[in-house]
Amino acid sequence: MQPIKWEKGRLLLIDQTRLPHREEWIACTSYREVAAAIKAMQVRGAPAIGLAAAFGLVLGAREYVHLPGQDYQKRLQEIAAELAATRPTAVNLFWALEKLMRVAEEMAEQDPFSIAGKLEKAAEDMLAEDLAINRQIGAYGRQLFHFPARVLTHCNAGALATAGYGTALGVIRAAHGAGKVKQVYACETRPLLQGARLTAWELLAENIPVTLITDNMAGYLLQQKMVDLVIVGADRIARNGDVANKIGTYSLAVLARENGVPFYVAAPLSTFDYRIATGREIPIEERDPREVTCIMGQSIAPAGVAVFNPAFDITPAQYISAIITEDGILRPPYRERIAALKAQRER
Amino acid sequence: MQPIKWEKGRLLLIDQTRLPHREEWIACTSYREVAAAIKAMQVRGAPAIGLAAAFGLVLGAREYVHLPGQDYQKRLQEIAAELAATRPTAVNLFWALEKLMRVAEEMAEQDPFSIAGKLEKAAEDMLAEDLAINRQIGAYGRQLFHFPARVLTHCNAGALATAGYGTALGVIRAAHGAGKVKQVYACETRPLLQGARLTAWELLAENIPVTLITDNMAGYLLQQKMVDLVIVGADRIARNGDVANKIGTYSLAVLARENGVPFYVAAPLSTFDYRIATGREIPIEERDPREVTCIMGQSIAPAGVAVFNPAFDITPAQYISAIITEDGILRPPYRERIAALKAQRER
Repeated sequence: MQPIKWEKGRLLLIDQTRLPHREEWIACTSYREVAAAIKAMQVRGAPAIGLAAAFGLVLGAREYVHLPGQDYQKRLQEIAAELAATRPTAVNLFWALEKLMRVAEEMAEQDPFSIAGKLEKAAEDMLAEDLAINRQIGAYGRQLFHFPARVLTHCNAGALATAGYGTALGVIRAAHGAGKVKQVYACETRPLLQGARLTAWELLAENIPVTLITDNMAGYLLQQKMVDLVIVGADRIARNGDVANKIGTYSLAVLARENGVPFYVAAPLSTFDYRIATGREIPIEERDPREVTCIMGQSIAPAGVAVFNPAFDITPAQYISAIITEDGILRPPYRERIAALKAQRER
Repeated sequence: MQPIKWEKGRLLLIDQTRLPHREEWIACTSYREVAAAIKAMQVRGAPAIGLAAAFGLVLGAREYVHLPGQDYQKRLQEIAAELAATRPTAVNLFWALEKLMRVAEEMAEQDPFSIAGKLEKAAEDMLAEDLAINRQIGAYGRQLFHFPARVLTHCNAGALATAGYGTALGVIRAAHGAGKVKQVYACETRPLLQGARLTAWELLAENIPVTLITDNMAGYLLQQKMVDLVIVGADRIARNGDVANKIGTYSLAVLARENGVPFYVAAPLSTFDYRIATGREIPIEERDPREVTCIMGQSIAPAGVAVFNPAFDITPAQYISAIITEDGILRPPYRERIAALKAQRER
């Protein structure tokens, strides 16, 4: 399952709002179409958003290739800013755009055709790298499975959230391949039901045993000793190890700790935001109230009711047993480990 | 709002599966119709189930009034057993049926017509008493509100769950009347969305400020200091103060304590089950997987996915700040306080 495909001029995205009942692909030929698809969550998941935005910038770079050099750089910056403004929480979006914009800026003296070509190459590399990174995260993460485990996960940090394979689900895939997964419990993940629609679909397709629950059942399962470990993805990780992830993650982390169950986060290094000290600095996106009041087009609440719809929450580092990256498994104290990681990357 | 009405031979129930979009009433003229309505959750909420079952027994008592004395008693016992088997967790169901069966047994020597008449009177008294009890719970409970508070509640422990006024929502109504409610956050309460459909509807109707959230957002609100207290109803309370209530309650209690927010339970004394020592003895109903995979008739998950659907959970007494009853406010240590309550009732 590869949810993002680049076909020389067209970005193909599987429409994640239609799954699991319909498998429809969207073909984006302009950066604005990509921006719209990110906003509408037709493509979602922190790494996948970053990759889609990167190809959005490539499409923009191709659209304005006729502009003179300085105007071209300015236009690329505007396009990057427009793509960056689609969603505020996941940092991979900004990371991917910044990475490509550095390529463009380094080539500022060259002709737009060459720049657009180099951006395309950079985005294609990023796509291939993300898949390799996820496999590496899976290889490290499966070491945390010491027996056939019952695993709880939230939202979808799977192939659909990445270039393929997945972060949290990548770990589950790798552990399952090693005979170390007995059962996966997927929280449905209201409001948009990524757990019910996407995670259940991905796992069923690979015959990994999956049982669907509503979000409010997770605490009961943890209390009843039905879960051996919890693993989730991440949208942004602060310097102190605080993690932004899909709304409901914080609750799972508290309930896991209360019941002595390890709580793991799986994320590529592009999810770390070294510019911010703690999770308090991470902006939390609030989305349309209709995501809460309507499900699959059906109203489930009385007309006129007020709604609060934060899409993410912050899990303080103290609740996190380990963070699994492509570079290995980070354990507390996170501040020191993340500083060391940053220093190593900069070397 | 009175969800249960007795019209001399017909039990009228507002169909809670149709709310908030349609206000339809069901007229039951046989005990089997009442049993079916309880099973289908057209009437739900621990006190309301007890009251509906009581009138179900009255309908049964009227149906078989032609039987000779001993056969009549036996038939009443069978009807009570059939009504008791509709749902396993809420104890008010058994409490109400036992209370009426004691009336019938004490009159065993009398003629069936007299017995049926007396049962009707007993059920009517129970209905009137429940409303009075809820108002008393509200009067006690509002004393816990020291300033205009932001309150979180789960499921529907409102007028619709009782003879009227409600337990947890009764406290909120009373506190709101005293100017002590700033905001109510209603958890939607998957799978059957009683919070979104019923609580939001009840509070909107009385202009009590209500904001709807999905269940997995509650932890975020508690962490962000957006909630001053949590209040819920109960389906059964053990001798040690452990509380069975709608699935998700346990999670809220853990998250409330983790964030220093008081967690209150409002319930009539008929919710206490003195026969059981701890919550571990309370049977947890598991319901149809389709409640999870379908919402308002729409499938939200891939076909064939396994589902776990427990309808209740147990909140250990240690997480409960106080239990509000019509007899006053119980605080820890619950074992001693509940024993004293039982002794006092038996005197």
